[in-house]
Amino acid sequence: MSAQANIGVVGLAAMGASLSRNLAHHGYTVAVCNRTYARTEHFMSEYADEGKFVPAKTVQEFVASLEKPRMAIIMVKAGQPTDDVIDELCTYMEPGDIIVDGGNAYFKDTMRREKEVSAKGIHFVGCGVSGGEEGALLGPSMMPGGSDESWKSLKPILEAIAAKAPDGTPCVTHIGPNGAGHFVKMVHNGIEYSDMQLIAESYDLMRRGLGMTPQEIGDVFDQWNNTDLNSYLVEITAQVLHKVDDKTGKPIVDVILDHAGMKGTGTWTVQTALSLGVPVTGIAEAVFARGLSSQTELREEAQKQQFKGPPRRFRCGREQPRSLYRAIRQALYASKIVAYAQGFNEITAAGKEYDWDIDLAAVARIWRAGCIIRAKFLNRISDAFESGAADVSLLFAPYFKDAIESCEHAWRDVVAQAVKHGIPCPVFSSSLAYFDGLRSKRLPASLIQGQRDLFGAHTYQRVDEDGTFHVLWTETGEPEVKMA
Amino acid sequence: MSAQANIGVVGLAAMGASLSRNLAHHGYTVAVCNRTYARTEHFMSEYADEGKFVPAKTVQEFVASLEKPRMAIIMVKAGQPTDDVIDELCTYMEPGDIIVDGGNAYFKDTMRREKEVSAKGIHFVGCGVSGGEEGALLGPSMMPGGSDESWKSLKPILEAIAAKAPDGTPCVTHIGPNGAGHFVKMVHNGIEYSDMQLIAESYDLMRRGLGMTPQEIGDVFDQWNNTDLNSYLVEITAQVLHKVDDKTGKPIVDVILDHAGMKGTGTWTVQTALSLGVPVTGIAEAVFARGLSSQTELREEAQKQQFKGPPRRFRCGREQPRSLYRAIRQALYASKIVAYAQGFNEITAAGKEYDWDIDLAAVARIWRAGCIIRAKFLNRISDAFESGAADVSLLFAPYFKDAIESCEHAWRDVVAQAVKHGIPCPVFSSSLAYFDGLRSKRLPASLIQGQRDLFGAHTYQRVDEDGTFHVLWTETGEPEVKMA
Repeated sequence: MSAQANIGVVGLAAMGASLSRNLAHHGYTVAVCNRTYARTEHFMSEYADEGKFVPAKTVQEFVASLEKPRMAIIMVKAGQPTDDVIDELCTYMEPGDIIVDGGNAYFKDTMRREKEVSAKGIHFVGCGVSGGEEGALLGPSMMPGGSDESWKSLKPILEAIAAKAPDGTPCVTHIGPNGAGHFVKMVHNGIEYSDMQLIAESYDLMRRGLGMTPQEIGDVFDQWNNTDLNSYLVEITAQVLHKVDDKTGKPIVDVILDHAGMKGTGTWTVQTALSLGVPVTGIAEAVFARGLSSQTELREEAQKQQFKGPPRRFRCGREQPRSLYRAIRQALYASKIVAYAQGFNEITAAGKEYDWDIDLAAVARIWRAGCIIRAKFLNRISDAFESGAADVSLLFAPYFKDAIESCEHAWRDVVAQAVKHGIPCPVFSSSLAYFDGLRSKRLPASLIQGQRDLFGAHTYQRVDEDGTFHVLWTETGEPEVKMA
Repeated sequence: MSAQANIGVVGLAAMGASLSRNLAHHGYTVAVCNRTYARTEHFMSEYADEGKFVPAKTVQEFVASLEKPRMAIIMVKAGQPTDDVIDELCTYMEPGDIIVDGGNAYFKDTMRREKEVSAKGIHFVGCGVSGGEEGALLGPSMMPGGSDESWKSLKPILEAIAAKAPDGTPCVTHIGPNGAGHFVKMVHNGIEYSDMQLIAESYDLMRRGLGMTPQEIGDVFDQWNNTDLNSYLVEITAQVLHKVDDKTGKPIVDVILDHAGMKGTGTWTVQTALSLGVPVTGIAEAVFARGLSSQTELREEAQKQQFKGPPRRFRCGREQPRSLYRAIRQALYASKIVAYAQGFNEITAAGKEYDWDIDLAAVARIWRAGCIIRAKFLNRISDAFESGAADVSLLFAPYFKDAIESCEHAWRDVVAQAVKHGIPCPVFSSSLAYFDGLRSKRLPASLIQGQRDLFGAHTYQRVDEDGTFHVLWTETGEPEVKMA
């Protein structure tokens, strides 16, 4: 087989097939390969007329069909299957070739693989691909991490197939070396969890608190999509809420079992933030809320217990609902800003920890289209990072500080009402608690340090003098001891 | 050297030295050994007259001095130092001997070590030891995990040196095989984090919300120690709040820097809960609150920003503070019950995952003395698990259900007030949100499943039919599809 393909894709499940077609639609000749050849044949029978494909029966044949430097994108399951494909590719590839892992790999796996593969002179690029099957086909947001040299070869191709932001910019940028791309994709997914939970809490307040129907709430989300909240997730929320179940004639949201699933990237985001010491309370509460929703035995037993609690329905006059759902919108926006601030702080911390030089403005820019969290306000985020005003926290950039402060009163009101009426809003309330903690001049952490020094001699620092101190708690009258 | 010692301790830093003395005080002949012999000599010069010690210069000598089956307790730093000592002990020990790791090891390391060591016929016991230096000396709470056979040999010795609960029961029990002991110790520490943060939030509300002095708040904690809240941590909180700094004459809590430190077990507890899919919102928020408190740059920059926010001082009449701090006590108690319920759920989940058969009533019983979270209400917890009423959740045991319901109104009121006045109470509010989520018949997770099915074809389940479904969202009028 002659080297005729510009690029290749290994793995022809939903995402790999869509990405292959996307490449072909942009004029590239695409080598395609799958563990079972039957799937490759099926792919060819369905899509051969969409562009130039070179089907390969084996990885060896696949590699031989690529022009140099060879570029192969792996779209298989994360974990062992990815390692297996990498091993096989490395057997036939040569120094200077490029392997791209487009799956949802854990960033530390990507770092390990990059080390192993680059030792053979082959470039390894861990590339986050967001936007699902549709994004892969019509234009995803892509987050590649790898060497500068590999980026030079990949750039024109990835820019061609990427989603385009409203201003025409392709939604792909070189995030940084080794695991940087998969790390940023992981945090993207974590933010997606908090976005979705915030929308769910808003819906719940209108549904159970204000007694509105899914149709009415869908209309509200449609309106919200014309505000600062304009985003893909708000748009599809209206779609879901307006959808009627064919079988029962009920709103589909009332027919769907209320157990939320998850696939792991949200969990990784929180676990990694914990290791980095970065509070991501909004994302954590969103992940836990999904976990709670799926604990069947716990929830069934709780129903048997018949906990009473306050009436969930808000007591309000005829005109009040309108002002209340305006307040809910403000609570949603403020909480959303906090969750993004926390997510970007996690990226900053990882950048320091792993020596990645990540351009946060560029990250916000490539999230403007193609991916699930695409939203109008990412323009604002991008501007904030570009100006340097958000270096320490997004909350300190003037636009976002103003936004939070103008929402603040409504935000407090909504959380207080939810608490009084027994409607759970874990991300609303934890985001607010984070904001209040952040702006506190003094925190009660001093009491915690006192306790720790008393029971574990963990020592403490003073506000008025450098050094490490320990109180001799048991011997009254004794002076404190300076330790170092 | 003849085999004359009943048991040995490797590692004579604070914890190891205290544990060795505790053993000797109970009549055991204790072999002692340290990497640098100087520390062993120092130990002997200080404590030789307290009991029978056999100092050893090398691990070989140490092992030779132990009668069979040999029992050696390792009290060195977690991680590589522990592995190094295990390797050396294994070189000289024989099948049937017992190695106990009394450090704060990560439970998965303990599982790995148990596998490696037991392959040589030597028993390996991962034993959580709680209570700090004082506990190790006067009686710790101990959580050993290992083989039944090793427990037979260890039981009389560990029971002798353990703390004794008010009813005389020793605070040690065989938790389960391999990593079970260190796992339970880890969750103990996670609960400790939430306990401490809840106390800190209560203090903050009285301090900034009610304008009380540390002395006055210390008096309140002293009173609380005569209620259901009776516990070591409440007791020492009063001590810390009453303590005056010698240098400045100010309350020590005002002199201590408000940056809370941590050593990792809280973080592990949350990371592990995330892997197990168990919501531990209270512990997570407590860990994040410590993290936030220590982010110097973020907090300093936040001060420069001069976020305004509402007045933190509650507006209340002369008599109101008393009723308010009664309400705070109830909020603290309810939140504490939730945090314990979550922690015990994590133990249950791990028990299933790792095939440990953990007796939760016994765990609660051995936490009644010796350890940091020792508290009167652990009797209630132990009773609840013994009766079977808390199998699914501690919140479902009649005593705790009643306690929560009688606190509920005050709990909501306190969280709403905190939210309105801008005082962060992340664990109060997230525990309440968990409770409200738990008792909800329907959760908005159905909306999240709808979104996931729309953007990622993740499918959903129905309330009225078994199976997995997918809505063909884009093709209006099309029926939904049953997937499996």
